Amino acid sequence: MTCPPANQNSYPYQNEPIWSRSEKAVARTAFDAALGRELHELIQQAKKMARQIQGSSDLWDLEHYLTQRRKEIDRKYDYRYSQLTRVFGILLYEKRLRVEELRGLREDKLKLIHSCAEFLAKDAA
Amino acid sequence: MTCPPANQNSYPYQNEPIWSRSEKAVARTAFDAALGRELHELIQQAKKMARQIQGSSDLWDLEHYLTQRRKEIDRKYDYRYSQLTRVFGILLYEKRLRVEELRGLREDKLKLIHSCAEFLAKDAA
Repeated sequence: MTCPPANQNSYPYQNEPIWSRSEKAVARTAFDAALGRELHELIQQAKKMARQIQGSSDLWDLEHYLTQRRKEIDRKYDYRYSQLTRVFGILLYEKRLRVEELRGLREDKLKLIHSCAEFLAKDAA
Repeated sequence: MTCPPANQNSYPYQNEPIWSRSEKAVARTAFDAALGRELHELIQQAKKMARQIQGSSDLWDLEHYLTQRRKEIDRKYDYRYSQLTRVFGILLYEKRLRVEELRGLREDKLKLIHSCAEFLAKDAA
């Protein structure tokens, strides 16, 4: 899932916002909370799928599902400051994060995060 | 898991026993029964591991375990007539197959199967 206006492929990242110490703390808490919720949800889903296994095809479906979800989560939860506004934009769009959890971030980041979330919402419409 | 005296890497397989129609039927039944039991056991184990998941590391352990077991089972259950005496030797050694289930195979195959199982038992001792 991509989201402008992140400069994902260029390094060093020009126009990349600078994160203050207090913003980093807010970001870490919000990031960990969203990841924790997504993992909790996935664990419940895995337990449910396992309970419902009746034959080997259900078993390999579970394996495949877990592999896909692991890769997706690894890709999505990228805690690099150059990526964080994009990551939070995606999490906001997916309703895995509430705006209140980002309280304490400066306006420059919030703008980028909202613009990413809105772009994804329009893209999906 | 390897087992002499299979000629695994040569083709066409010299000295490869010829399987009669009735032997093929016995082989298919024994093969499917062993595979079915192994899959059943694996499903029970997966369900148990899923029930016991408490955090994400348990979840990824389950995924890794299922992937490893799938690869192992794919490798082991090789239903090519050129491989079957080796496969049955392994299954006998692992106690996933009872000698009685091979009743109906001719002496040439039983000898190869037992020699493979004995080789593995000695190798593990």
